[in-house]
Amino acid sequence: MAIERQLEPAAGRRLRLGMVGGGQGAFIGAVHRIAARLDDRYELVAGALSSDAERARVSAADLHIAPDRAYSSFTEMAEREAQRPDGVDVVAIVTPNHMHAAPAIAFAERGVHVICDKPLAHNLDEALALADAVNRSGVIFGLTHNYTGYPMIRQAREMIASGDIGKARVVQVEYAQDWLSTPLEASGQKQAAWRTDPEKAGAAGAVGDIGTHAFNLAEFVSGALCESLAADLSRMVPGRALDDNAHMLLRFEGGARGALWASQIAPGAENALRLRVYGETGGLEWSQEEPNSLLFAALGKPPQRITRAGPGALPVAAHATRVPSGHPEGYLEGFAQIYRDLAEQIAARIDRRPPDPASLLTPGLAEGVRGMRFIAAAVSSSACDAAWTRIEG
Amino acid sequence: MAIERQLEPAAGRRLRLGMVGGGQGAFIGAVHRIAARLDDRYELVAGALSSDAERARVSAADLHIAPDRAYSSFTEMAEREAQRPDGVDVVAIVTPNHMHAAPAIAFAERGVHVICDKPLAHNLDEALALADAVNRSGVIFGLTHNYTGYPMIRQAREMIASGDIGKARVVQVEYAQDWLSTPLEASGQKQAAWRTDPEKAGAAGAVGDIGTHAFNLAEFVSGALCESLAADLSRMVPGRALDDNAHMLLRFEGGARGALWASQIAPGAENALRLRVYGETGGLEWSQEEPNSLLFAALGKPPQRITRAGPGALPVAAHATRVPSGHPEGYLEGFAQIYRDLAEQIAARIDRRPPDPASLLTPGLAEGVRGMRFIAAAVSSSACDAAWTRIEG
Amino acid sequence: MAIERQLEPAAGRRLRLGMVGGGQGAFIGAVHRIAARLDDRYELVAGALSSDAERARVSAADLHIAPDRAYSSFTEMAEREAQRPDGVDVVAIVTPNHMHAAPAIAFAERGVHVICDKPLAHNLDEALALADAVNRSGVIFGLTHNYTGYPMIRQAREMIASGDIGKARVVQVEYAQDWLSTPLEASGQKQAAWRTDPEKAGAAGAVGDIGTHAFNLAEFVSGALCESLAADLSRMVPGRALDDNAHMLLRFEGGARGALWASQIAPGAENALRLRVYGETGGLEWSQEEPNSLLFAALGKPPQRITRAGPGALPVAAHATRVPSGHPEGYLEGFAQIYRDLAEQIAARIDRRPPDPASLLTPGLAEGVRGMRFIAAAVSSSACDAAWTRIEG
Amino acid sequence: MAIERQLEPAAGRRLRLGMVGGGQGAFIGAVHRIAARLDDRYELVAGALSSDAERARVSAADLHIAPDRAYSSFTEMAEREAQRPDGVDVVAIVTPNHMHAAPAIAFAERGVHVICDKPLAHNLDEALALADAVNRSGVIFGLTHNYTGYPMIRQAREMIASGDIGKARVVQVEYAQDWLSTPLEASGQKQAAWRTDPEKAGAAGAVGDIGTHAFNLAEFVSGALCESLAADLSRMVPGRALDDNAHMLLRFEGGARGALWASQIAPGAENALRLRVYGETGGLEWSQEEPNSLLFAALGKPPQRITRAGPGALPVAAHATRVPSGHPEGYLEGFAQIYRDLAEQIAARIDRRPPDPASLLTPGLAEGVRGMRFIAAAVSSSACDAAWTRIEG
Repeated sequence: MAIERQLEPAAGRRLRLGMVGGGQGAFIGAVHRIAARLDDRYELVAGALSSDAERARVSAADLHIAPDRAYSSFTEMAEREAQRPDGVDVVAIVTPNHMHAAPAIAFAERGVHVICDKPLAHNLDEALALADAVNRSGVIFGLTHNYTGYPMIRQAREMIASGDIGKARVVQVEYAQDWLSTPLEASGQKQAAWRTDPEKAGAAGAVGDIGTHAFNLAEFVSGALCESLAADLSRMVPGRALDDNAHMLLRFEGGARGALWASQIAPGAENALRLRVYGETGGLEWSQEEPNSLLFAALGKPPQRITRAGPGALPVAAHATRVPSGHPEGYLEGFAQIYRDLAEQIAARIDRRPPDPASLLTPGLAEGVRGMRFIAAAVSSSACDAAWTRIEG
Repeated sequence: MAIERQLEPAAGRRLRLGMVGGGQGAFIGAVHRIAARLDDRYELVAGALSSDAERARVSAADLHIAPDRAYSSFTEMAEREAQRPDGVDVVAIVTPNHMHAAPAIAFAERGVHVICDKPLAHNLDEALALADAVNRSGVIFGLTHNYTGYPMIRQAREMIASGDIGKARVVQVEYAQDWLSTPLEASGQKQAAWRTDPEKAGAAGAVGDIGTHAFNLAEFVSGALCESLAADLSRMVPGRALDDNAHMLLRFEGGARGALWASQIAPGAENALRLRVYGETGGLEWSQEEPNSLLFAALGKPPQRITRAGPGALPVAAHATRVPSGHPEGYLEGFAQIYRDLAEQIAARIDRRPPDPASLLTPGLAEGVRGMRFIAAAVSSSACDAAWTRIEG
Repeated sequence: MAIERQLEPAAGRRLRLGMVGGGQGAFIGAVHRIAARLDDRYELVAGALSSDAERARVSAADLHIAPDRAYSSFTEMAEREAQRPDGVDVVAIVTPNHMHAAPAIAFAERGVHVICDKPLAHNLDEALALADAVNRSGVIFGLTHNYTGYPMIRQAREMIASGDIGKARVVQVEYAQDWLSTPLEASGQKQAAWRTDPEKAGAAGAVGDIGTHAFNLAEFVSGALCESLAADLSRMVPGRALDDNAHMLLRFEGGARGALWASQIAPGAENALRLRVYGETGGLEWSQEEPNSLLFAALGKPPQRITRAGPGALPVAAHATRVPSGHPEGYLEGFAQIYRDLAEQIAARIDRRPPDPASLLTPGLAEGVRGMRFIAAAVSSSACDAAWTRIEG
Repeated sequence: MAIERQLEPAAGRRLRLGMVGGGQGAFIGAVHRIAARLDDRYELVAGALSSDAERARVSAADLHIAPDRAYSSFTEMAEREAQRPDGVDVVAIVTPNHMHAAPAIAFAERGVHVICDKPLAHNLDEALALADAVNRSGVIFGLTHNYTGYPMIRQAREMIASGDIGKARVVQVEYAQDWLSTPLEASGQKQAAWRTDPEKAGAAGAVGDIGTHAFNLAEFVSGALCESLAADLSRMVPGRALDDNAHMLLRFEGGARGALWASQIAPGAENALRLRVYGETGGLEWSQEEPNSLLFAALGKPPQRITRAGPGALPVAAHATRVPSGHPEGYLEGFAQIYRDLAEQIAARIDRRPPDPASLLTPGLAEGVRGMRFIAAAVSSSACDAAWTRIEG
């Protein structure tokens, strides 16, 4: 029960948050808002929630944003907020992929910290430009590869870094869903429509939408960079323009080999992100749908089930949790952890103090660019019939 | 993905929330605050967080409560808030069991709605007095039997009410933990200390602390009242004054039989609340530690795993969830559901409109009194060597 | 892979086996035969497979029993086999409950070892008489409480005996099935018919049929005798003469408390025998439907999953298994283990050598009498409205 | 309980069985013998259990084989048994891979039916020669790809053939073990030694030993042939001559894509063979370590758990099982099913009657040759840096 103190983070500055995108009917915007609220480190005070003025206005009112801070243009919002003494400290960008770069740059250049949904941008060039601009600005940039906020993912990463499984040999990662098993986009379903449209989603479908999460998690936990891949992307639903299923062989620096499977056409799979890493002396296994535990097998010993906040949980896991073991946490808490950690980083910057080191695991520009390189390599490899393709950078 | 609209409840009045108890170092107070924040229907504006003035002041500052609304006396708080035009709409009472009644009555009598932690009171007499006073006041009263906020618990209740398993025959409920396997109270651990102290916890230990949750869930889901029980309470850790383990036989109206096991000395059990109900034509099984699914076996058909927001999920489950299936929700979301539903009830009262009927499943005074009757019956039965004892009311 | 040597027991005498009961259409007789064959320590050479002469003859022919050793009377079989120089070494009695005693005594008195299906007899008096007669004869007597043949059950017993969980505090045992959820006996189904008929099954239904297994397992694993019980037996299917569901409170010598649930009307439960034992410093959990592993939680350490033949498996488990870990063994192997161990005991007796000590865990007369005492106590307690009733002996 | 009649197959001819290989200390020979005994359709009467005369003699005595039928040369055994009026009907060949072909041909040419361990031969050429010779002889040839004997594997195959998941799109198969995580062969461990020695195991290590099982299962269940693969074989343990880990991309006729992972260096994996097949309208999932159930998800409906002999089990599953649902069967029963089905085929041939059609699912020469083509393609692809390689035939 020593975990109790984690329920709420150390009292501290509550940041003024703005949001771009996420008006009525949006999905991920609402997730971001819950995540921001959960630990009480943010107050939503401004928004360009839609480019449609009326929708922007109504959406803002729903969220108790003052009328004078309800914008329909992110440019105007960036300018006006920058001039206010009580302007936003940080902005959350929750627009579709092809509209991340412009607002991120606009706010960063005005000194506003940025939290951006993944993937970083529409394509690699845009991502590099965004990274450049943001890097020059010096603001803090968080990318919501939210699955890295799960306590047991951080525990797994720490255990591997500490040598608990020895040198990594095999990395198996998969992310399966079933919601695109039929041509749902033809029905006008909004989430399906933009994700299957190359104009809005970019060059990849399942690979970009969920494959990037799997890839990010594999590197985050194993601590090894993937050097090259051989990818076989397929479009199983007739008429679909982008991949809805992808298989890849992976080769990691240091010699580990692996496989990645991303699919949105696997009936029965809801959000089945699963990671397994095997090393010389042990193995680890984690599943997003039961995120509160981690299976750990030391070679020659009975496998253990380590639970969030239970025996064997490390400080990195304790840092990322709120309630005692046995009280399950889930997706929203994991997402909120990214927000909580970024709040600490931003508050520390404002207060000119060093941040809590435990808060520094959040993904950012580097991971964002890496994700774009992954997509580019996967598409390129598949176009060459699964030829081995290096992931640069 | 039709579930998306559930991410945030219909925009609405944000209620002004006060809190009694829950200062620095408290556990359940922080849980209540997260639950209140999650769906953005409450703003914490006042508190009597501690009877120690300095601790009350500092705790309030941590929570961004204005200094003039940081009280150290709930009586003063009730009086002063009732006079303010922007006084609290609702108060959350998160003090130890023996200090629920007085503040609940104080606020209720001034027209402030009440959310109270369970169990309702220190003993049955006090509970009945509290219920009387609150009933006379006419305010809305919510009791945080939080496990009834889980979507799949509501699904189970609805399925049974709809006849999906036929007439209930067997109810098996258990709630096991291991954190009191050693005399932790002797170490000064605060949570252990008050729960094992008859002065503060009342006549029962595990039975009151977690047995009441199990009992509440059994009645809530089965839809049948438990008429009598035969209880064998034991104190396994030497020197302990209250039961830390309890076994009971149960008899329900309508003829169902059952068993209840509550234990805080079961090594390996974290928060293992589990319910199974078997009827003439089917069975249901649910476990709190994996709350996102419900096992349903119709006699003679392959058992199904129904997931929160997945195929087969009913509107009552959809009402009580935020994110799509496969994105696990947990303890905090279940707790927040109680707060969300009470917000709807209270806002409807203020706005003089009928509440959303889906919000009306929250436990209240009746369930609170029933829990106290359960404790009294269990203690009495055990004192008579597990004699059958009626649960009145 | 050191486990390999266990595939087949040390080469040895192959015993001549006779069988009473188990003709065409019988269930448990065929199970006994498979169990006897599996490890190649028995050769079926004689049988009184039915009291119907023609059925006895045909059944014997099916099983490659020579015509002159196919009897229709167990009395005749006992006499004739006793006179043959190549007469049976051991007889398996697989008749319904009320026909165990007479053949068991007939063979025992002629020096033939006996393997008898459970429960031992029709009622306690008959059981005591049987035990007396067999004890006087000095033959080896095995009772097929087959679940004690599972490797991980023996592992659990050994771990508890070794102090791995400290002094036992709580024993939870349950055995649930669903096949009698409807009045199947009315359809003429043979297995249902005799089990629900007091003339053939005795004074108890589910309690005798499966409750005895649960009770036996609880005592076998915990190493503690159950001193008294308070039982609530119910008949859920209208018109049924015997209990089809039973709940009991248990009190063990040494202070442990427990509960037993036996049910044949739990939809979705196939053969759900499950045992949990919690002690001062650890807990163990086992489920018959996934018998190849045992969950072990040492207080304050991550719980372990110990697998049959995997890391942490003890010699008592290794003794009772055939194939490496990960190659699941099941019900038939567990049953065969009883036969394998009895073969060793009997062969050692014939060969005038000490038996392998690892083979001595088989249940026998004492466990059989104890099972009958359990049934008597349960029925008596329930008749007195769940009054506490001592289990004598 | 209609399943009861399956406990023992229809009474019938008991076949005279010979064995080549499998002397003292061998692993798979003992498994074959248990499998042959389980259903009582074979009697072991002759053997060339070892090429060492003394070891052959002693091993035979252990198994109750008459001294004059204990050979040390399979050639002599084939000749002498062919001349006896009571000579063996069928021979089981359980020698290492490189010694399958010669005895198989020797017996087949004398009209003795053959049961052969997998993989079929040392290399593809040898396999083709063996297949040719056996085909010319006209005898029945069974290959012990034993996992096809599991009831739920046959159920899965039948469900797919019946259209229950629509056209197959994705096939995920994996087979992971951990017992070669260290250089066990250096310790002289016999099983490790020959499996890692190219002279004895052939061109592949893990791919040949377990990858062939995974490949066989993928084709058997999906009903689709794998047309080409891209393989990345690795040797993770320093100094090892053959692959101990392999990843492959798969392309099936009809358009399905898949991945295969075979590893013997995955700590915590015991014998983790797992298959998942996803089609247009449903998905199936099966794991060898919990073989008694099959997960079936029809798109848009709650997933079902179909159990061996439980509701939803098809006749093909019922055919391949012995005990009621809830009584787990395992590896030995699955292996025995191959033997049982081959007994039926061979007995029918001898008795000049048509065999039970349900017995015809056993793998044979075609599957054996296919396995060798798989190995050849995998090794060849990996040598070309995972180039796509067609699997001929």
